[in-house]
Amino acid sequence: MIYADNAATTKISEAALKTLIELNQEAWGNPSSLYTYGQKAKEVLEDARADIAGLIGAAPGEIIFTSGGSEADNQAIVSAARLGAKRGKKHIISDTIEHHAVLHTLNRLTDEGFEVTLLDVDQYGLVDPEAVRRAIREDTCLVTVMYANNEIGTIQPVKQIGEICRSKNVLFHTDAVQAMGHIKIDVEQQNIDMLSASGHKFNGPKGTGFLYARKGIRLTNIIDGGAQEKGRRAGTENVPAIAAMAVALKENVDGIDKTSSYVTKMRDKLIEGLSKIPHSVLNGDPKLRLPGNVNFCFEGIEGESLLLLLDDRQIQSSSGSACTSGSLDPSHVLLAIGRVHDVAHGSLRLSIDHNINTDEVDYIVKNVAEVVEYLRGFSPVWRDLVAGKREFVL
Amino acid sequence: MIYADNAATTKISEAALKTLIELNQEAWGNPSSLYTYGQKAKEVLEDARADIAGLIGAAPGEIIFTSGGSEADNQAIVSAARLGAKRGKKHIISDTIEHHAVLHTLNRLTDEGFEVTLLDVDQYGLVDPEAVRRAIREDTCLVTVMYANNEIGTIQPVKQIGEICRSKNVLFHTDAVQAMGHIKIDVEQQNIDMLSASGHKFNGPKGTGFLYARKGIRLTNIIDGGAQEKGRRAGTENVPAIAAMAVALKENVDGIDKTSSYVTKMRDKLIEGLSKIPHSVLNGDPKLRLPGNVNFCFEGIEGESLLLLLDDRQIQSSSGSACTSGSLDPSHVLLAIGRVHDVAHGSLRLSIDHNINTDEVDYIVKNVAEVVEYLRGFSPVWRDLVAGKREFVL
Repeated sequence: MIYADNAATTKISEAALKTLIELNQEAWGNPSSLYTYGQKAKEVLEDARADIAGLIGAAPGEIIFTSGGSEADNQAIVSAARLGAKRGKKHIISDTIEHHAVLHTLNRLTDEGFEVTLLDVDQYGLVDPEAVRRAIREDTCLVTVMYANNEIGTIQPVKQIGEICRSKNVLFHTDAVQAMGHIKIDVEQQNIDMLSASGHKFNGPKGTGFLYARKGIRLTNIIDGGAQEKGRRAGTENVPAIAAMAVALKENVDGIDKTSSYVTKMRDKLIEGLSKIPHSVLNGDPKLRLPGNVNFCFEGIEGESLLLLLDDRQIQSSSGSACTSGSLDPSHVLLAIGRVHDVAHGSLRLSIDHNINTDEVDYIVKNVAEVVEYLRGFSPVWRDLVAGKREFVL
Repeated sequence: MIYADNAATTKISEAALKTLIELNQEAWGNPSSLYTYGQKAKEVLEDARADIAGLIGAAPGEIIFTSGGSEADNQAIVSAARLGAKRGKKHIISDTIEHHAVLHTLNRLTDEGFEVTLLDVDQYGLVDPEAVRRAIREDTCLVTVMYANNEIGTIQPVKQIGEICRSKNVLFHTDAVQAMGHIKIDVEQQNIDMLSASGHKFNGPKGTGFLYARKGIRLTNIIDGGAQEKGRRAGTENVPAIAAMAVALKENVDGIDKTSSYVTKMRDKLIEGLSKIPHSVLNGDPKLRLPGNVNFCFEGIEGESLLLLLDDRQIQSSSGSACTSGSLDPSHVLLAIGRVHDVAHGSLRLSIDHNINTDEVDYIVKNVAEVVEYLRGFSPVWRDLVAGKREFVL
């Protein structure tokens, strides 16, 4: 099996799994308990917090643990909105290709009387920092732009956007779920006020995530209850899994230069190979993209059939976001970068990691080409295209 | 070490840990992914859902997975409130000894214009079903009463309260975090519309929980984003941990008669022994209480010192809820059952499980008695009591 869907989820690393197992046996106490065994769990928790903070240029007190990236996104945005509302600022800026954890939260705020400006992206999915500057108003309380897109892998000019926000005194949040552990992130250097991350996207356990919020930003609880996480997130902390997440992030960040350079090479080889398939197009920026992300549209086919046939050939891939699979609507991201409906339906996302080798890349290219050709043989759309009854877009 | 703080958290069972480890290696795919490996994770997820539903008399579609009990409490209450508000019903009934996951959520709703009636409890912490009946108004949308109290272990007359709610067409939610896996629960027989549970309170992994919501009750998302859990809870499902939670619950429920009868015997032996300490009182109902819960107040001492000295003697206990430790306020539960401030400060909760034996019970009784006596020797309050300068309450 070639697992090429690491953007959906990654396998937990051996070291992280070892930590998860050991701590479930050795530090399973409640970190809020005052006796030795509880305090041991508390120490493990605080070590994990310090480790994660150190890896992204934050202070430990600026990290709170959540159940995942979606919760962190929700909390960051709602917190900024509540802070804004207190000062009469109810305008939020984002863009059209955010994850639904951001877009749906913004929708909910719209229902509450907030105004949301969604900036368009260019053909590669890039947000223009100058467009952010122009969109900022007196009543803007938040700019939220993802670090890297989950479908097409485009990496946004986060540092520049953050700089503009800081100069205008507007909070800047970035959903770094796809970027964390895969590219270098430093919240201080990159002018980030709030950042969301998810453990299972960087070889940590599922059910873990964290929210970075710069000191002084008062968070609103998404989950009310006990006084855990300094009153900012109720619920007994999942200490073994949180520590395992910290281990995974440290492993990834420590090896990031080597991994990134290797994975980028494999990615570019994949892109080169797949580009040779006629009437295909790479989605996302050719250079400003996540090391492991490859996303193509192939005209005249359905992405779902493509990935199911690739599954038969032991290649695990995706047609886009796992979070929206099952939906018949084409990807909002592909539509936003200008793909028409028919083309957007024929998408394939391959998200690789360092375990892939060149033979596997060749195998993927060969098989995708074969399957695309095979599917086109059955496709009425393709027949019409070839017969000149409709025009090729790609 | 004698671990007597199972109400704070339990150790994951061997079978649950085995499941957690195996599935992190064998079913770590994203259950929303369409290929074989994702669908395998989906099957594991749905099996866990069916297992848990079966264990509490629910249908699989009525269970959604959350990150824990607090999240489930928040979601149940907010959902009922939103449904109520749509029909102009903005009155909620609860009681004074609920967990903060319930009380703080109710506080938030009060800020939004909801009216909350908190019923008093009797000296044992019991809610009177007739008081619920009297409190229900035309605009009542929810009654939320916990199944069993986390501090004093009192088990509420859930079935009767549920019956009254049903006859009045008012939703009934119960926070069953402490009860689940320890006493028999059947949502159908007990007239429960919504129920919250937490995996780590019944030997499942931390970071897991579930919300039961009777078919037809439209849930409001606490976490917005992807379409997981039929759109009711965003975020990639933590399949390995969810399956491990199901394993733990099945183990507990399968053995519930035997465990409950043994643990109750040990509990009553503990209560008998500790009752002999002068100027002490059992908190909570003597009979209608969780099998593993023992909670005493000892006059003239501080609970925190008591538990720290017991810790030195290898007994891990608590002065109340782990979620509020660190706070200097006395327990709201102990105040609600009529303990005065001074007495409420001198509380000790021992929450045992089936691993305890009679020698350990004897050891606990002997050591608690010794430590209480020792602490009273240093206590100015105790000196005043003995000297007749202030009156004994107990």
